[in-house]
Amino acid sequence: MTNLYPIFISMGIGVLGIIFVWILAKRILSKDPGTEKMIQISNAVHEGAMAFLFREYKSIAIVVVIVFVILFFFVDKKTAFAFVFGALCSVSAGYIGMSIATRSNCRTAQAASRSYNEAIGVAFPGGAVMGTSVVSIGLLGLSLAFLTIILIEKRLQPDQTTAIVEAVRMIAGFSMGASLVALFGRVGGGIYTKAADVGADLVGKVEKGIPEDDPRNPAVIADNVGDNVGDVAGMGADLFESYIGAIVSGMVIAAAPNPRIDIKGVMLCLLISAWGIVSSTIGIFFVRTDEKSDPQKALNKGMTASAVLLAIGAFVLTVSWYGNIQFFWAVLSGLIAGMIVGYVAQYYTSGKAVATIANSSKTGPATVIIQGTAIGMKSTALPIIGIAIATIVSYKTAGIFGVALSAIGMLSITGMTVAVDAYGPIADNAAGIAEMAGMGPEVRKRAEKLDAIGNTTAAIGKGFAIGSAALTALALFVAYGQSARLDILNAMDSRVVAGLFIGGIVPFLFCAMAMQAVGRAAFSIVEEVRRQFREIKGLMEGKAMPDSSKCVDITTKNALKEMMLPGIMSVLFPLAIGIILGIEALGGFLVGSLITGVPLAVMLANSGGAWDNAKKYIEEGNLGGKGSDAHKASVVGDTVGDPYKDTAGPSLNILLKLMAVVSLVFVPLILRLHGLLMSLF
Amino acid sequence: MTNLYPIFISMGIGVLGIIFVWILAKRILSKDPGTEKMIQISNAVHEGAMAFLFREYKSIAIVVVIVFVILFFFVDKKTAFAFVFGALCSVSAGYIGMSIATRSNCRTAQAASRSYNEAIGVAFPGGAVMGTSVVSIGLLGLSLAFLTIILIEKRLQPDQTTAIVEAVRMIAGFSMGASLVALFGRVGGGIYTKAADVGADLVGKVEKGIPEDDPRNPAVIADNVGDNVGDVAGMGADLFESYIGAIVSGMVIAAAPNPRIDIKGVMLCLLISAWGIVSSTIGIFFVRTDEKSDPQKALNKGMTASAVLLAIGAFVLTVSWYGNIQFFWAVLSGLIAGMIVGYVAQYYTSGKAVATIANSSKTGPATVIIQGTAIGMKSTALPIIGIAIATIVSYKTAGIFGVALSAIGMLSITGMTVAVDAYGPIADNAAGIAEMAGMGPEVRKRAEKLDAIGNTTAAIGKGFAIGSAALTALALFVAYGQSARLDILNAMDSRVVAGLFIGGIVPFLFCAMAMQAVGRAAFSIVEEVRRQFREIKGLMEGKAMPDSSKCVDITTKNALKEMMLPGIMSVLFPLAIGIILGIEALGGFLVGSLITGVPLAVMLANSGGAWDNAKKYIEEGNLGGKGSDAHKASVVGDTVGDPYKDTAGPSLNILLKLMAVVSLVFVPLILRLHGLLMSLF
Repeated sequence: MTNLYPIFISMGIGVLGIIFVWILAKRILSKDPGTEKMIQISNAVHEGAMAFLFREYKSIAIVVVIVFVILFFFVDKKTAFAFVFGALCSVSAGYIGMSIATRSNCRTAQAASRSYNEAIGVAFPGGAVMGTSVVSIGLLGLSLAFLTIILIEKRLQPDQTTAIVEAVRMIAGFSMGASLVALFGRVGGGIYTKAADVGADLVGKVEKGIPEDDPRNPAVIADNVGDNVGDVAGMGADLFESYIGAIVSGMVIAAAPNPRIDIKGVMLCLLISAWGIVSSTIGIFFVRTDEKSDPQKALNKGMTASAVLLAIGAFVLTVSWYGNIQFFWAVLSGLIAGMIVGYVAQYYTSGKAVATIANSSKTGPATVIIQGTAIGMKSTALPIIGIAIATIVSYKTAGIFGVALSAIGMLSITGMTVAVDAYGPIADNAAGIAEMAGMGPEVRKRAEKLDAIGNTTAAIGKGFAIGSAALTALALFVAYGQSARLDILNAMDSRVVAGLFIGGIVPFLFCAMAMQAVGRAAFSIVEEVRRQFREIKGLMEGKAMPDSSKCVDITTKNALKEMMLPGIMSVLFPLAIGIILGIEALGGFLVGSLITGVPLAVMLANSGGAWDNAKKYIEEGNLGGKGSDAHKASVVGDTVGDPYKDTAGPSLNILLKLMAVVSLVFVPLILRLHGLLMSLF
Repeated sequence: MTNLYPIFISMGIGVLGIIFVWILAKRILSKDPGTEKMIQISNAVHEGAMAFLFREYKSIAIVVVIVFVILFFFVDKKTAFAFVFGALCSVSAGYIGMSIATRSNCRTAQAASRSYNEAIGVAFPGGAVMGTSVVSIGLLGLSLAFLTIILIEKRLQPDQTTAIVEAVRMIAGFSMGASLVALFGRVGGGIYTKAADVGADLVGKVEKGIPEDDPRNPAVIADNVGDNVGDVAGMGADLFESYIGAIVSGMVIAAAPNPRIDIKGVMLCLLISAWGIVSSTIGIFFVRTDEKSDPQKALNKGMTASAVLLAIGAFVLTVSWYGNIQFFWAVLSGLIAGMIVGYVAQYYTSGKAVATIANSSKTGPATVIIQGTAIGMKSTALPIIGIAIATIVSYKTAGIFGVALSAIGMLSITGMTVAVDAYGPIADNAAGIAEMAGMGPEVRKRAEKLDAIGNTTAAIGKGFAIGSAALTALALFVAYGQSARLDILNAMDSRVVAGLFIGGIVPFLFCAMAMQAVGRAAFSIVEEVRRQFREIKGLMEGKAMPDSSKCVDITTKNALKEMMLPGIMSVLFPLAIGIILGIEALGGFLVGSLITGVPLAVMLANSGGAWDNAKKYIEEGNLGGKGSDAHKASVVGDTVGDPYKDTAGPSLNILLKLMAVVSLVFVPLILRLHGLLMSLF
């Protein structure tokens, strides 16, 4: 049993992480939630978010059952159970994170009525709950599932090494479970958040001329719910998937017979990740501000602290414990690539880039669109060169295992990244509550300043999510290749070329579907909001209450309905290619999807972010300020950018990883069915 | 000498084609050019177009000399001469086509004053001059260069087969010459045409409120010149490049030792292309209409006739002459894929797709952009699946040679396609002349109907250009692989993966540059037009003439200046990747550029076309018609679409082929320099 102790360590650290979450949550809940009006609004958001989650869970449950049956009968029984458990763990992390985030908003607003510093002291820990939940529950669940399967396999296999190798093969199911939840969280959540946003604005701001976050607007609660659904639950599920995917692909590659089975390498993946939780948690304590200092700097300090700690620990683990400094370079390359992607995103969504878009608004909306698209396209270069360099460095130093180590390196500080990212919607909601509860200009101003930082961190977070999705999908692809015993994937072979081309169009199709889905879902809310303004007497005068929950309900229903087709497509496409054209074509298909999917995701995120900030730049009083023609042109850019950056772009992360993990898990079935098909002709 | 007779056949048919061009041109020039006013306008367009061409030729000459020197001293002397000759041939075809097209416009307008049917009888032959010039001069030039090199080599080589194999290697230079001219024609021309269009509209329509094509606007001539520069010369050079590239890649692959040197296969490439000229020319005679019938049908009839004739001839050549029916399937797969790409483009830029965009204009410009982008993204699926299937079919039936045969099959009817495409700007210009010369509503109406058909054929033509670029670039990539003795390109190798990723971002960067270039170039014309309205007294009142040639001059200068950076990039990028990361990474790079470049090009072309037609649909009186809010929203879509479909999209065709042919030609130099670099470290 001796060589299983790293699993116990990772489980232990997972448990410690969960205890830390519990302490953070208790501390937040002990804070003053504010006036009755504030509590009432916060409760509405909380209940709306929970209503979304529960309905989403119901849909997930149905799909989980179907996939479980397929896995159980056609692939492998233990893989099937691991799949269910993976989905359950992701759902738990999302639930805990959401329920605390939606209770932190009114407490943040109330703290802002005292001081700016106190407000951060609620909002950031609120986000940290989500971040730490993702990594602790993820690692604990994965380790537990792994250990259980090993213990069962030990009775069936000749020796412990074989038992571990078998267990690694089955643990891929856990990763697929995480992917399924991420699909619902990111795609469904992405459609929800933008449909609610557009719906609320179109009737409220445009038709009725009432301000944003006005309590009379029936869709305002749905809009606030959307921020949490998209940026807390969606982002959390996305990074949960990346985190697990990176670890699992590393384990699969290490346990493959080529070049040699390396059980210590399997354990190394778990140990680096465990140390990542420690690094993230310590980093959280570095986020401290006082009244005068820039909170952005505090967040950056926390990020840097986590990264440095991780690098030190990874060095110790790879050199002292494993005895191979080459592996350290692989881990480091991923960590650095992740930071490059994040900071490039920040560069292209602020400063000069944003100013050129704002300037182009002088000649109307068309030039805003052209300029923003061009900047988004340009912003793809550096992140992808960063990923390419990380790939070469990690491969040269540690072979194909290095690619996975690089992904693990990037994702080890997930706890910190998600914390920073989930902070955004809490601050955004707090600003909304301050407005709706009429807390006065001073509080509103403090809350808005908190929110503004959230916008910058969101850009970094989105970049990080894309970068991590790219590296994870790449690692999963390599794991797929190992699992399918595909040593060579010849890009001069026609089936591989066809796979590459077809894989390359899937991200385009998926984006198109996601964007059109937002339009249709938004339209259904517009109708409902119009109906309420027409039928509820005294609503416009502020004498009657809107039926907010109805709006939440309609948006939820439509968002989940709209995500079905793209969701099914992303599972069936790789299976169809594999079964019809074979295992090599599927390899090409996965690579092709990455080649177009990653730059598209970067472009959509950065164009969207840049348009958003160009509008804000004009609203700050530049180029004529609010109400000017330039402002109107910039609003068009922002509206186009919304589904780009919050729906289509982030959904691509999921698509890429999901297609790779589905291919990995279904390798045996694909091989069998393709053989059957070939024998028919 | 016996086995060289196919070269003489292809030369002979090239000569016959040129005679046909001469007859067509004489017939057109014998038609009535109309009133003095009309001649004056036509002359201005003609002179402007020629001014653009000559300045472009000067820039080309400089680059040709530089590249010649590099090829001569570092690669191969005969390749260097072939390169210069290839550039010269492309320039000649462009010059002949342009000079007839810009003289057909007033004659078409004058014919339209008599009957609709007569107008087509001038406009279509006007386009056919360009189409037939491209293929006849292309094939004659290529065959002549090939024969000359063989004759020289025969004295140096042990036997005739070796002489031919050596000559094939050198003939790739001819293809690169064609690529260089295409770069200037398509990218420079693309920037020119949109800069002039935007410049003319921004001051004329928006600031001064005068109608389109108003003779008082100093940029109107530049705008009309732009139509010819972009859609006649640019399209011609683009397809000249594809045409030559496809034939050359087929010859290179057939002459490679792996699987075996196949001189008869080399000749087959020439013979099929020669038969393609015959098919296209006969097809041109099928384009006949009478007053009642739909001219669109006449054009389709011509296309179908050419395609059917080509298929019959290809069958005879492959089966009877070469003795291998498998090759026929490869040729046919490309021909069919080409038609699919064209018709899918037509589907997505008309009918239902356009109506949904028009409908989305009711909710403002943002939804127009989102909807149009989504439709463009969706439209990528079928063309690329068509290309993927053609690749598999051609490979399965005829191996890697099949990929080139497929491209040759698609491009054999280039003569017909370019004829149909070049017809568009002639009709467009005729409508402009009818307006400027005040020829009355009846003539104007006939000319506009001619123009409307031109818009549909333009969509098909753009689709065909992209499809052919994709297949040609793919064939050139395979030829590159053969030339670099790269039997396997392992997409699991990190350098190949890095190459794939980096190759995938180049189209994004290139698009961004092209779009921003249009903006800058347009701005310079806006300033000039404003200046003329300010300084030329009586211009607005119609009493003074504008200085049109100044506008042409400024646009030309700026367009050529702006294309320099993207142009240099597309040559240096592949060289840098090859020298630094090696021959495998460069292979990955070329494939990566295709994986993103082809869907991007399709998306940009179809989004742009659909926006254009959605605007026209509203202008026909739907959804409130001209001047409504919906119309204004649709104008935003059209303005965004202009650089998409006429600059960035078509430029990608060139980028993909140019990078592939540069890699092919420079293989020896890249191998040497990469070796040198590696030995340093």
